[in-house]
Amino acid sequence: MTTPPGPGPLAGIRVLDLTAVVVGPTCTLTLAQQGAEVIKLEPPEGDLLRRLGGKPRNPGMAPKFLHFNRGKHSITLDLKSDTGRAAAQRIASEVDVFVSNIRSAALARLGLDWESLRQANPRLIHCAISGFGSTGQYRDLPAYDTIIQGVSGMADCMARTFDQPRYMPFVATDHMVGFIAAQAICAALVARASTGRGQSVEVPMFENMAHFVLTEHMNQMTYGDEGPWGDPRILDPNGRPAQTLDGWICVSPNTDAQAHGFFTAIDQPDLKHDPRFATVAARLANVTEYFELRRSALATRTTAEWLERLRAHQVPAMQVNRVEDLFTDPHLTETGLVTWQDHHSEGQVRALQAPNRFSEGLPELRDTPRQNEDATEILERFGFTPEEIAALKGPTA
Amino acid sequence: MTTPPGPGPLAGIRVLDLTAVVVGPTCTLTLAQQGAEVIKLEPPEGDLLRRLGGKPRNPGMAPKFLHFNRGKHSITLDLKSDTGRAAAQRIASEVDVFVSNIRSAALARLGLDWESLRQANPRLIHCAISGFGSTGQYRDLPAYDTIIQGVSGMADCMARTFDQPRYMPFVATDHMVGFIAAQAICAALVARASTGRGQSVEVPMFENMAHFVLTEHMNQMTYGDEGPWGDPRILDPNGRPAQTLDGWICVSPNTDAQAHGFFTAIDQPDLKHDPRFATVAARLANVTEYFELRRSALATRTTAEWLERLRAHQVPAMQVNRVEDLFTDPHLTETGLVTWQDHHSEGQVRALQAPNRFSEGLPELRDTPRQNEDATEILERFGFTPEEIAALKGPTA
Repeated sequence: MTTPPGPGPLAGIRVLDLTAVVVGPTCTLTLAQQGAEVIKLEPPEGDLLRRLGGKPRNPGMAPKFLHFNRGKHSITLDLKSDTGRAAAQRIASEVDVFVSNIRSAALARLGLDWESLRQANPRLIHCAISGFGSTGQYRDLPAYDTIIQGVSGMADCMARTFDQPRYMPFVATDHMVGFIAAQAICAALVARASTGRGQSVEVPMFENMAHFVLTEHMNQMTYGDEGPWGDPRILDPNGRPAQTLDGWICVSPNTDAQAHGFFTAIDQPDLKHDPRFATVAARLANVTEYFELRRSALATRTTAEWLERLRAHQVPAMQVNRVEDLFTDPHLTETGLVTWQDHHSEGQVRALQAPNRFSEGLPELRDTPRQNEDATEILERFGFTPEEIAALKGPTA
Repeated sequence: MTTPPGPGPLAGIRVLDLTAVVVGPTCTLTLAQQGAEVIKLEPPEGDLLRRLGGKPRNPGMAPKFLHFNRGKHSITLDLKSDTGRAAAQRIASEVDVFVSNIRSAALARLGLDWESLRQANPRLIHCAISGFGSTGQYRDLPAYDTIIQGVSGMADCMARTFDQPRYMPFVATDHMVGFIAAQAICAALVARASTGRGQSVEVPMFENMAHFVLTEHMNQMTYGDEGPWGDPRILDPNGRPAQTLDGWICVSPNTDAQAHGFFTAIDQPDLKHDPRFATVAARLANVTEYFELRRSALATRTTAEWLERLRAHQVPAMQVNRVEDLFTDPHLTETGLVTWQDHHSEGQVRALQAPNRFSEGLPELRDTPRQNEDATEILERFGFTPEEIAALKGPTA
């Protein structure tokens, strides 16, 4: 299926986006890709990612910022000023969704918490993303992705595999909780379509990531403190891509049929009768030996040879792509994930299409905004007078 | 904010769930937590995770299965039989959402693809999660989480930090794409509320995870092939939790104010004037040295001492929780993420509450179903006669 051009499933949904860096921008990128109108409200100094996201062609347009903010509209308001704050509240009173990643106490001081906004806008979906929510003793503590990776048990899971607590090489919790927040917002929009009422949605990163870790690894601690926790198949340090003669390969023969196909592909078909490897349960019980068998067998041919052999025997297998390979990967090239875009201020840049497909259509690729470039248009659409606009774009912008 | 009991934002939404293991079950767990009625359709042998998800108290009720399938209803149908397939198609013709993680060719053979179902149910949201979607040359290839971690560039990002391609110790792509699919489904439900039309949504794991990797790490390859790709601050092997006298700690002083607070906390306040560390840009340019400074300074006190000192100077800091610590973490205890539940067949088990909060309410915690235990009730609700039910529960169940 390809996606036809169209307004997108979230067409007509207006979002006031008071978020920065990654968690909130991931949430609103998802909404924008699906047709929502996202108004990115930035402080005078701009989203930190404009400067921290790699070396840009022009100041404030770092490449990482480009990718997390495509298709949004930018306005700068100084929320430390009374007029800036009043303007933000006025826009918030007319949108469908307000999303922030500011701690709850600070949000209340700005008059942008749910209790302050719901009177004027009872249909509002108010989404507060934060490290620790508005209840519980960590609620006022600041959080970054690394802090959440550490406190949620993720770094400890890494320690099982890598000997010491480590972070994953992604802002993984920010990025994932951004998707989760977009889902929660859309669920609240579904409810509003039948009840007519908005609501407050809180998305705490800690709870979400502890939930993530525990669904995967609670294991025997489900029944009591004696444990152990941990999925041994996932945490085994030998569960890793295998080196071939010319690169790396992932091979995952999980079912009996796949495992037996693998034994045939490596010219050791009799292993399917070996009591250590014959069944799912046996391979689980001998997982270290099984991983070692896979590793040593796969070292003997090239990746392309293995892919041909393994696929002939219905064994799930794929090359390990280097990141730069993604730009030439034949499948991604055919499906069009990465495209060159003529950005209105940054020139030719690689841009990413929405990864999911909707048969009723999605908006075509749009630009990432320079800071504050949509201010006049946004303020006009929300009924601000030319005098008000001039005042806001002066000292407070 | 706490969440009051209530029907949840997705109350009234009926979901036919033909998924197994992790990616689809994560999607439908999210929907069930928010009040959707999820009908889990299992083959006679049951969801593989029932057996592969750790040692259960009773056959087919592995702890990992419990956590990914709470609040759903189970029915077994043999889709290899004509009557089983017809029953699945009949249920699919009346639900709001159909979700599968079967490859597109197999789904068409079952008559459960969008083209087959849309005539009878034009309001249906049809969500097909798969490794590689229905177009592009990998479309018929099988995928597991490890395969996607390898082909999407994730394992290569791990190689920057850990020297060789490695997997993350989670079924990270399954788990994350499950959240993404739940979001896409809800966006399509939002659209249906105004257009009256359902649609087909395709969620390919490869495209989603390549998008994930590239938004974070495309960096200079945004502008051309010379690159480099990669966010150096995230990929630096020295960016890791630090060992204290009695454990591990995460400390992330990112802004200038936080970094200067950190220097004061470690009794080296003059470092704020050091040209290597004074500004965000300087610390980024000297990131390896900065990480080493943090590591060596933090080795000298206990975690509790550091947390007190660092928080006094507004420096983001948290203990590294071991996974077992999550059960006694004071914040999680207060917010109630983990609770003991009296499961109707498994007895006292630890269960996970929905991590997000909705002011209009969420359903209370429910059980995880034993295989096929809701068959009669489900079939009755979809208008099957007692004779039809008896026939389906006989040879085909």
